[in-house]
Amino acid sequence: MPTTHHFEPTTYHLTLGQHEPVLRIQSGDTVKTSTVCADGRDRDGKVVIEGGNPQTGPFSIEGAEPGDVLAVRFDRIVPNRRFGWTGTMLAPNVVEPHFVHRLAQGWVRGDWEVDLETRTATLVRPETTATGFTVPIEPMLGCFGVAPPGGQALNTGTSFVNGGNMDYRGFGEGATIYFPVFAPGALFHLGDGHAVQGDGEIVGTGIEISMDVTFTAWVHRKNQPIMWPRAESDGWMLVAGNARPLEQALQHATTELVQWMLEETTLDERGASIILGQCIRYEIGNVFDPAFTVVAKLEKKLLDPYRKAP
Amino acid sequence: MPTTHHFEPTTYHLTLGQHEPVLRIQSGDTVKTSTVCADGRDRDGKVVIEGGNPQTGPFSIEGAEPGDVLAVRFDRIVPNRRFGWTGTMLAPNVVEPHFVHRLAQGWVRGDWEVDLETRTATLVRPETTATGFTVPIEPMLGCFGVAPPGGQALNTGTSFVNGGNMDYRGFGEGATIYFPVFAPGALFHLGDGHAVQGDGEIVGTGIEISMDVTFTAWVHRKNQPIMWPRAESDGWMLVAGNARPLEQALQHATTELVQWMLEETTLDERGASIILGQCIRYEIGNVFDPAFTVVAKLEKKLLDPYRKAP
Amino acid sequence: MPTTHHFEPTTYHLTLGQHEPVLRIQSGDTVKTSTVCADGRDRDGKVVIEGGNPQTGPFSIEGAEPGDVLAVRFDRIVPNRRFGWTGTMLAPNVVEPHFVHRLAQGWVRGDWEVDLETRTATLVRPETTATGFTVPIEPMLGCFGVAPPGGQALNTGTSFVNGGNMDYRGFGEGATIYFPVFAPGALFHLGDGHAVQGDGEIVGTGIEISMDVTFTAWVHRKNQPIMWPRAESDGWMLVAGNARPLEQALQHATTELVQWMLEETTLDERGASIILGQCIRYEIGNVFDPAFTVVAKLEKKLLDPYRKAP
Amino acid sequence: MPTTHHFEPTTYHLTLGQHEPVLRIQSGDTVKTSTVCADGRDRDGKVVIEGGNPQTGPFSIEGAEPGDVLAVRFDRIVPNRRFGWTGTMLAPNVVEPHFVHRLAQGWVRGDWEVDLETRTATLVRPETTATGFTVPIEPMLGCFGVAPPGGQALNTGTSFVNGGNMDYRGFGEGATIYFPVFAPGALFHLGDGHAVQGDGEIVGTGIEISMDVTFTAWVHRKNQPIMWPRAESDGWMLVAGNARPLEQALQHATTELVQWMLEETTLDERGASIILGQCIRYEIGNVFDPAFTVVAKLEKKLLDPYRKAP
Repeated sequence: MPTTHHFEPTTYHLTLGQHEPVLRIQSGDTVKTSTVCADGRDRDGKVVIEGGNPQTGPFSIEGAEPGDVLAVRFDRIVPNRRFGWTGTMLAPNVVEPHFVHRLAQGWVRGDWEVDLETRTATLVRPETTATGFTVPIEPMLGCFGVAPPGGQALNTGTSFVNGGNMDYRGFGEGATIYFPVFAPGALFHLGDGHAVQGDGEIVGTGIEISMDVTFTAWVHRKNQPIMWPRAESDGWMLVAGNARPLEQALQHATTELVQWMLEETTLDERGASIILGQCIRYEIGNVFDPAFTVVAKLEKKLLDPYRKAP
Repeated sequence: MPTTHHFEPTTYHLTLGQHEPVLRIQSGDTVKTSTVCADGRDRDGKVVIEGGNPQTGPFSIEGAEPGDVLAVRFDRIVPNRRFGWTGTMLAPNVVEPHFVHRLAQGWVRGDWEVDLETRTATLVRPETTATGFTVPIEPMLGCFGVAPPGGQALNTGTSFVNGGNMDYRGFGEGATIYFPVFAPGALFHLGDGHAVQGDGEIVGTGIEISMDVTFTAWVHRKNQPIMWPRAESDGWMLVAGNARPLEQALQHATTELVQWMLEETTLDERGASIILGQCIRYEIGNVFDPAFTVVAKLEKKLLDPYRKAP
Repeated sequence: MPTTHHFEPTTYHLTLGQHEPVLRIQSGDTVKTSTVCADGRDRDGKVVIEGGNPQTGPFSIEGAEPGDVLAVRFDRIVPNRRFGWTGTMLAPNVVEPHFVHRLAQGWVRGDWEVDLETRTATLVRPETTATGFTVPIEPMLGCFGVAPPGGQALNTGTSFVNGGNMDYRGFGEGATIYFPVFAPGALFHLGDGHAVQGDGEIVGTGIEISMDVTFTAWVHRKNQPIMWPRAESDGWMLVAGNARPLEQALQHATTELVQWMLEETTLDERGASIILGQCIRYEIGNVFDPAFTVVAKLEKKLLDPYRKAP
Repeated sequence: MPTTHHFEPTTYHLTLGQHEPVLRIQSGDTVKTSTVCADGRDRDGKVVIEGGNPQTGPFSIEGAEPGDVLAVRFDRIVPNRRFGWTGTMLAPNVVEPHFVHRLAQGWVRGDWEVDLETRTATLVRPETTATGFTVPIEPMLGCFGVAPPGGQALNTGTSFVNGGNMDYRGFGEGATIYFPVFAPGALFHLGDGHAVQGDGEIVGTGIEISMDVTFTAWVHRKNQPIMWPRAESDGWMLVAGNARPLEQALQHATTELVQWMLEETTLDERGASIILGQCIRYEIGNVFDPAFTVVAKLEKKLLDPYRKAP
């Protein structure tokens, strides 16, 4: 019978890798835990670790083996403090090269007050032409994933087949993400909460904030590997492709979405092409990190007529 | 006082260029006309011209001069026949290189029945695993624009600063598009109707169909050039950047959106960055044509607190 | 019997297109003519036309028809004045985005004295940390080509299947270039001489100079089209692919080089792959213009054992 | 006084990371060692490790600290067996998407006989249209480098700021490479010898072979970091930029070459731009691996007039 674990982290990782698990759970168990924000500050604003996107975990899901698929559902993602922060200037790679000199040099942090009652965030400082700007929040996690293949340890600033720093605003409460497993126990890490984030993460941040997170993890299927993180959210099936340039990320996402359709439906490549051609949606997770993220999406109900008999 | 013109085309162009106008209208006039589909078939299915994306027009808007901005509102875009057609196989550049051999070679056309009452389209032939697939329609134009700069004549398969074959599904009824003007009269061309299209136009087509189109055109402003097509639609302001690769298209769209914000609001570069960072949306028009199209969007109401006094 | 024509231009074109020929020659004829420099100054430094890369021509080669291949050999390319000019700052797209602000804004022209006896060029002004820098010259043409397909007229700043502004330093005296023909007479244009140019044209110019040019043109083969400009020079066979991004230009060049090998040798795709894998050379023509140019090269003698019997 | 060490490897690594050093040497020492080929076969053809690009090492250079620069000179790189192997089919990403189906599916290995007396390699099997093809050898190492930043462990199939699988044919005998140091002792790894390799490594391999390697390593400078691998070879200074897409690799290489010029000469950004604009050379190391490699080069003698007084 599934168990709910409470885990309060005291150590964090700056790579996704085959680190010693902080907790071993059974397939189907739920974990209530928390994450610090991207610069390592916790719910009290205390710096508990230096560096970028510190990860809570890893959690070992017993029975997950290389070649399997791990599922993680984000049951709850809620900011656990009232302040967040952002970059305040567009990244130079998202504007035309000749416009870059118009972007002020030097990092200036924006401080935001996050109101969980109104579910909004407001820029409170520094003094800029946008101070006082208020935006509805949509909490999500920017960086999470499992241990990567080949015994690698990958910086939490980037992403790959195992997830990582995808910075996709669709990875919020209610989403279920499917990961390829490369190490025994899968080794799930999570962190980098954003109260909200625009497409592309083009100022280099969402509204960075510490989070209380509840997730449930299970071994979704045995020995039928997938190539890229898949997810289901709000009636859509979606795939995140992580690479540079955007074309390659889009190719990964599109190819994996076709593979998924071939697995679950009676459609062949042409049938999948016909439906995707008129119905696919693309979203840009980030165009800021070392690997960009493109998401390919399809409404699940469109495939109902074609589902394989169970 | 604005006039409504009825114009039935008999000739078409396969480039956007400084062709002799088929009609000269006053700023503010409305034109009711029609377009043939991408392979040159009209409302009766008759081939009236060979070749790709034949354009109706150009229409000269009297008083439009190089350096001005031309506005065109699509008042009505309605398919004028009951059949459309599509490609049926993903373009090789949207899947991983090693997956390309899985895509069947050779062009196979899909034929769709378009029902204006139910506003759906259904694949009727050939026999495939997706035959019978039905999708709601959202009519739009794939290719339209003004004469390009420098006396060029550009193929209707590609796009540039003057518009062209952007294949963006958001350019439907109700959208108002703003173009930089490069030639006297602007010389507006239009064609390549789609009953519907997925993001990216990844089978190389939407549901290609001939259209009845009503548009209204006017000189939006004098001698204050813009760099890329801008548009307003459904509460959003948006910019289409057309280039390869996707990063460059995204840079064009983002830069022009910042410029627009600087023109119309009290925000400076940092203020614009702050708002875009958490609120921008990107959409991929096409990743199929010689120039890709990326659209950068922002909800207009977000800028209400910052609008310059008129 | 081949004729040598002397043609002194008085008009120039700023697009490559189906312009009225300035001279009609027979296949095999030679033309002695001249080109103005990229900003339209002639041998005397007089501005004879405003604008970028003005082209001498077009020359119609009688008998060249769409589907044929036109050959043009550059018999002589010699600067016809003693001064040239360059940009003096790296283009922002060739450095990392965060480094762009280190590049001074604003165009500053560098003036060079070109000495045909020593075959060197020396920067004479303005005063910079590199003034007095001397470089050996290797004269070449940056922009030349035939009329493009589909009735287009393309800006002389960019390049395509028909040639154009490739800015490849290997297109100098002695090179023979092969073009696909898209219009009757092929319509050969030429201009944009450089006394020398580095790879990539990364300051936006070579040493721009007016030239005396002698070329010989002939119909190389009938009704067997090629896709991209091919060339032979100095024992090498080479192909120029023109596109953005660099990967696409490289794909065009590599594919066309394979096609060429398949046409002229007994090698199949695998045999061509084996040889190219260990022996191909790539060069970057330009990474500055709207379309980048990548050249794929192979030493011709490597194919001697595999040539088809004539 | 420098020592020469003989080290015969018995273990290998499939990541570049902070592994336990196999040998600790003093700055200035020389090491005579060997590398297995990319599929883990040694001088006798015996498989001593499974997997891609196994690395000999790491070697700790005492005194090298994060922020320093490590120099490694390849004194000798000589194949230590008479057979090598290659891929035999172009990678799908180096041809146009529509051409991919022309490339046969399935890996077919080519076996080459390597003759150290004639310094040539000859394809001996399988039977193809290119069997018997003979090419001069130019031995080099495809993959080598130091431990990467941030405690990462990176697959030997890719490359980054610390070197790795750059697959650049210019990294042969006589080259001195400079690395940024990220871990105490720098931790130099080496492997993946090629008897020869074309630009781009477009069949996915050079002629893969085990090597005897002699190298000398020293702490080149203290606490003045560099960003990317630099090298000196045969009168040229060069920088390897490793990233996708090619544009980004080129930006890294160009920017680092400018930085190097600023460090060692009296030139400022404009002066460096002027010289690079007419004299830079680019080479493509690989367009096959996860990160591509572009090399930016300049003849060192061009900078002699501008060198800072020591």
